[in-house]
Amino acid sequence: MTDPRLEFLLQSCPHLRLKTGPGDLEHYGRDWTRRWTPAPLAIALPGNVEEVQAVVRWANTHKVALVPSGGRTGLSGGAVAANGELVLSLERMNKALAFDAVDRTLTVQAGMPLEALHNAAREHGLIYPVDFAARGSCSIGGNIATNAGGIRVIRYGNTREWIAGLKVVAANGELLELNKGLIKNSSGYDFRQLMIGSEGTLGIVVEATVKLTDPPPATNVMLLALPSFEVLMQVFSAFRERLQLEAFEFFTDLAVKHVTAHGAQYPFQEIHPHYVVTEYASADEAGEAAALAAFEHCMEQGWVLDGVISASEAQAQQLWRLREGITEAVARYKPYKNDVSVRISAMPAFLAETQALISGAYPHFEVVWFGHIGDGNLHINVLKPDDTSDAEFLAQCEQVTKLLAQVLHCYDGSISAEHGIGLVKKAYLSSTRDAAEIALMRAVKRAFDPNGLMNPGKVFDL
Amino acid sequence: MTDPRLEFLLQSCPHLRLKTGPGDLEHYGRDWTRRWTPAPLAIALPGNVEEVQAVVRWANTHKVALVPSGGRTGLSGGAVAANGELVLSLERMNKALAFDAVDRTLTVQAGMPLEALHNAAREHGLIYPVDFAARGSCSIGGNIATNAGGIRVIRYGNTREWIAGLKVVAANGELLELNKGLIKNSSGYDFRQLMIGSEGTLGIVVEATVKLTDPPPATNVMLLALPSFEVLMQVFSAFRERLQLEAFEFFTDLAVKHVTAHGAQYPFQEIHPHYVVTEYASADEAGEAAALAAFEHCMEQGWVLDGVISASEAQAQQLWRLREGITEAVARYKPYKNDVSVRISAMPAFLAETQALISGAYPHFEVVWFGHIGDGNLHINVLKPDDTSDAEFLAQCEQVTKLLAQVLHCYDGSISAEHGIGLVKKAYLSSTRDAAEIALMRAVKRAFDPNGLMNPGKVFDL
Repeated sequence: MTDPRLEFLLQSCPHLRLKTGPGDLEHYGRDWTRRWTPAPLAIALPGNVEEVQAVVRWANTHKVALVPSGGRTGLSGGAVAANGELVLSLERMNKALAFDAVDRTLTVQAGMPLEALHNAAREHGLIYPVDFAARGSCSIGGNIATNAGGIRVIRYGNTREWIAGLKVVAANGELLELNKGLIKNSSGYDFRQLMIGSEGTLGIVVEATVKLTDPPPATNVMLLALPSFEVLMQVFSAFRERLQLEAFEFFTDLAVKHVTAHGAQYPFQEIHPHYVVTEYASADEAGEAAALAAFEHCMEQGWVLDGVISASEAQAQQLWRLREGITEAVARYKPYKNDVSVRISAMPAFLAETQALISGAYPHFEVVWFGHIGDGNLHINVLKPDDTSDAEFLAQCEQVTKLLAQVLHCYDGSISAEHGIGLVKKAYLSSTRDAAEIALMRAVKRAFDPNGLMNPGKVFDL
Repeated sequence: MTDPRLEFLLQSCPHLRLKTGPGDLEHYGRDWTRRWTPAPLAIALPGNVEEVQAVVRWANTHKVALVPSGGRTGLSGGAVAANGELVLSLERMNKALAFDAVDRTLTVQAGMPLEALHNAAREHGLIYPVDFAARGSCSIGGNIATNAGGIRVIRYGNTREWIAGLKVVAANGELLELNKGLIKNSSGYDFRQLMIGSEGTLGIVVEATVKLTDPPPATNVMLLALPSFEVLMQVFSAFRERLQLEAFEFFTDLAVKHVTAHGAQYPFQEIHPHYVVTEYASADEAGEAAALAAFEHCMEQGWVLDGVISASEAQAQQLWRLREGITEAVARYKPYKNDVSVRISAMPAFLAETQALISGAYPHFEVVWFGHIGDGNLHINVLKPDDTSDAEFLAQCEQVTKLLAQVLHCYDGSISAEHGIGLVKKAYLSSTRDAAEIALMRAVKRAFDPNGLMNPGKVFDL
């Protein structure tokens, strides 16, 4: 620890835990992307809000950029530190602080993993309903930074809907207490909402008061086989009309190929082009009858070719694995990943156009699609062909992103549904947000962070 | 129309409708507050977005302040024009533009009255669930400006939760298209959310894409009589645990006195200190059995003294009138009004402390409380004593606001739950928002509106 700036940091904050070993710099300097070489100055692991404030004040004095860091499961490079930044890891600030049974809120430190938050809510007979596959390692602070979505958005909305209050250390080191757990508060600009999704560029979230709710009713899981993507919206409408949907997820035959090769069980005789796994409330016979009615209606219309309903919790998990196992099953192909969104109604046309353009430009690419139909959110995974080098594949995928960005712009869609912009999508922000909006983002960034020390270079350049 | 600036305005926007008659200036220059003398320069009534943009560009050239104007039902002076501003009324821009059955969204112009929006949604078999008494005259644009809440927040949340997209004319005349109806969009700062609740100080909302949902199940209405405010939270918990609550509203014996004097029917033999009217899902016998179980549990505990369940739609309306008729019933007393919020769990202590302080300082005041228990939102109405002059009463009420602000500060509450800050509560903003937050509000205001022409002087002074 020879950098004199770190000596100053320890002088002003004597008990601050710092890590500077090469392994730590690499570990804490990157997220799930692997495109940048981690090169942080050091890793600070504050144990409380005051230590975070001290670090931020020091950063202002010494003009050191800060990268806030949660579980680093991000896919957009939002938590990458590749330019001598100090990584401010919240991992030690991972505790539940307060539960209120009347308010139905839980106040937690920002470094708490999502799964720990789920468990803490369950201990009080309630749930925190935002959920997705990275639950074991991602932190609630990171969820807030990207307004994380996931597999239950159709029923419960995004992270944004579940945050009743935030404590944020501002760029000048002051502590902002935003909304303080209130349900109604019409007292000027809602900076809590502005912070959500701002990817650490406006301040450092140190605490969150999250809303909890009742556990869902008993559910069942149904797997459907479809002849085409076009009919998917009809199937979605038929099910949404008749059932309380908890999830409605789509994937393709290619996804099934990989996920079954990876050990998942496939319940049908034949392979079909498209699949839906849906989970729905089925607390009583009426619920199950409605599900059967939806299924039969879709069969009659020719929108569904086959289907199976879970008869047990174990079978429900098996059906879910066909969808949730995709990411892991394709990981060995070092896939290019993107998550995009359009209005639900625009999905069929958007997918058809994009698929045609990619097949035209890169006929040898294996493209695995899956996504959250009820949210207009598609995940695209392009698998690296064995005979293409990493560098060549990366260059080709950059072209795929350009192509995606162009189509998204025509469809008024978003280049990031839930992963965030970070570094990966910064060059494509203008596909989604107009120049006037980006100019206002820069102005707001300067208003919050005049020295440009809060996760600089992420989302947009100043 | 002798002001040369208006000649310039008509030159740059020849078809713009302008009103300058004294009656129009008074009518469009004020809201439901009556504390300021309207004195606008003129009233512009644009018919489309391009005309709004032309007005905003003209305002920048001639440095004329703009006051956006919807139904002017506000209670905080947010739409008051008392300083030579141009009132920009959206009342002609009141049409539905597009409905999408798959997205379940309706795109409307900002001047559409809330009730017209309700009706437009119903025509498609869906509902827009935000609702409150001013529905016939308030506009969706005004609802967005204050993040309007109302009587269904416990079930559906505030206006904020129902806005999928906004078109906003920025202070420089550029059109911002915010979020474009997307459900998931993690692409930088969510300015849609920043606009909601900003009371016209950051730009002019010209269009909104609102989310719609399924109509609620069949409901029943129950009126409960309670011995004290303290047990109210127990009653709330008992009902929330067992039922899907659509509304849970509280009021006092004083409110009942005025509302029955005004013609409402009272179903009990005796007068009780406190009342709740609650509406809950009762689609089947199980729902009604759960309601009875909640009621009986509360009776056994001594938390409830009497109760009645609606046996018909007409009776449900009668019970609701005891709550919804309060504002009209006390109007002839020219009441001082305030709407405040605290965390739900803090309500009993907050109400007891505030009531004691007001009774101590002003023992002759008749104070009518009512509110939305599920939202932590209390409305306070202080009736003007007959022997107190308007001026004297106003001065005393200013003291009441000071007192409220002090208590709210201790409870981490908000000086405005749903009415907004406007002019009325500007001096008390610091009871709710810290100096650091207010400084950031000013910085964001300057970033969005460098010439200070968007509803200046509202919420805070620059």
